[in-house]
Amino acid sequence: MRTYDEYRLLTERSLVKTLKSCGDIPEKLYSAMEYSLMAGGKRLRPVLLLAAADMAGKNPEEAVPYACALEMIHTYSLIHDDLPGMDNDDLRRGKPTNHKVFGEGIAILAGDGLLSAAMEVMLKSAADSKSYYGIQAAEAIARHAGVTGMIAGQTADITLEGSIPEQNSVRYIHTHKTSDLLQAPMEAGLLLAGCRPETVDKGSMYGFHLGLAFQIVDDILDITGDSSVLGKNTGSDTVMKKMTWVAVNGMEAAKEDAGREIEEAIHSLKDIGYEHSFFDNLARDTLMRVK
Amino acid sequence: MRTYDEYRLLTERSLVKTLKSCGDIPEKLYSAMEYSLMAGGKRLRPVLLLAAADMAGKNPEEAVPYACALEMIHTYSLIHDDLPGMDNDDLRRGKPTNHKVFGEGIAILAGDGLLSAAMEVMLKSAADSKSYYGIQAAEAIARHAGVTGMIAGQTADITLEGSIPEQNSVRYIHTHKTSDLLQAPMEAGLLLAGCRPETVDKGSMYGFHLGLAFQIVDDILDITGDSSVLGKNTGSDTVMKKMTWVAVNGMEAAKEDAGREIEEAIHSLKDIGYEHSFFDNLARDTLMRVK
Repeated sequence: MRTYDEYRLLTERSLVKTLKSCGDIPEKLYSAMEYSLMAGGKRLRPVLLLAAADMAGKNPEEAVPYACALEMIHTYSLIHDDLPGMDNDDLRRGKPTNHKVFGEGIAILAGDGLLSAAMEVMLKSAADSKSYYGIQAAEAIARHAGVTGMIAGQTADITLEGSIPEQNSVRYIHTHKTSDLLQAPMEAGLLLAGCRPETVDKGSMYGFHLGLAFQIVDDILDITGDSSVLGKNTGSDTVMKKMTWVAVNGMEAAKEDAGREIEEAIHSLKDIGYEHSFFDNLARDTLMRVK
Repeated sequence: MRTYDEYRLLTERSLVKTLKSCGDIPEKLYSAMEYSLMAGGKRLRPVLLLAAADMAGKNPEEAVPYACALEMIHTYSLIHDDLPGMDNDDLRRGKPTNHKVFGEGIAILAGDGLLSAAMEVMLKSAADSKSYYGIQAAEAIARHAGVTGMIAGQTADITLEGSIPEQNSVRYIHTHKTSDLLQAPMEAGLLLAGCRPETVDKGSMYGFHLGLAFQIVDDILDITGDSSVLGKNTGSDTVMKKMTWVAVNGMEAAKEDAGREIEEAIHSLKDIGYEHSFFDNLARDTLMRVK
């Protein structure tokens, strides 16, 4: 197994090349897609995919197209989320959002383009290698990113906006908006390595619990982590009306819940039959952010 | 071979069932997706796919998931095209556009959802049947719908809006916005039937020329076919500034060009080695609309 940074760099080095492998993309469309794809970020999803494949004995270099495809899907969801018709955000990771730079029409097409390119890249890879494992991995990614996964979470998010935060709603949004796209790389990585369904399920449960912990930690940091936010919003209606774990359960319970989800994530891999300390450590690091 | 209406009805009967096969879709998202998917239309793209498969000896019933997926992709492109950030249209086929009924956020997600569901349906079908032909068909559809195909055409369309109509631009937009999604079903249908690359290419050329003829005919009907448009716009700046074949080449040349593209479409299938009168007739019917 390699380090987090090694998987991340393998992804960074491959994203542009993978996007360009689709062929002759119109200049303005390509610029908009590349702008958001290369805007940084932890690359958590592709790292999980490469590490899961590696853990189960698959050469991670061969899993790169699927890792890049997943990052393209994550990026498209951010571009569309930021649109005036959705969250209407001007900034993302400290930079102007896609539609602020390229206009709303191109931003919509850049999102559509990244999702399409992701599918194209995975299908090309599966077709070239005549790999049944490749189709299964692509199918898992499409399912978790789709209308019963991530898009279901986004729908709940905008449908329930403004209503009273409630445990079932927050849990639904968090598991679909966040956990689904962490289950996807665990399943895809293990499927690419040819693992059996029981093994894939264990990895998937790790992604599920890690995603929930991740989102609860984010909700906590929304209040405690940024003093400017703290000053402006703590206890105010703005924070308490948001669909966050803290708004529903309070700060102390949220910290306990995050800890329990991390323990469950680690527990999921206990009998997976591979050396899994990479994943245990990654999960514990998530929790360290709020300790 | 069956009739156009038989292939169309096979599609109509299967669209909702295929969409629902994705699983538990949130109610509002499902309603928005279904609203546009079932809003009617000629179902030309799925009909071409089913007929191409049938012509080459594949049971069209088995090609239904791919036919439905292609119609979902066509529908998503219309929903996103109509958005305020793109063409800002209030009506589509005489009914309020998706965002007028469900709001802009849900319309964006319904488009994303239909594209995702299309990919999921094809991948599930290919995975279930362990079919290499299925992956190839899905790959052809994803490529023609993607960033070097349909989305490239949409990008040119909004990038060049307002500039002087010019032959190369009009041809680029028409071939990518229209021909690509008619090449896709011809290739996919023949690939599903296990055809060789040379055969698939012949079908693809048919779709290419049919698409161009189709779009030129649409440009002609934009001026001659609708008297309300005729009264308001003929010769006006509005019509002449649009990126249409007529604006660039004039009405007489446009009619000649449409006829020539139809002849080329029919010529493409001459040596395909299957009985192809279905496709010859369909091409001639297209031309009849402006005769």
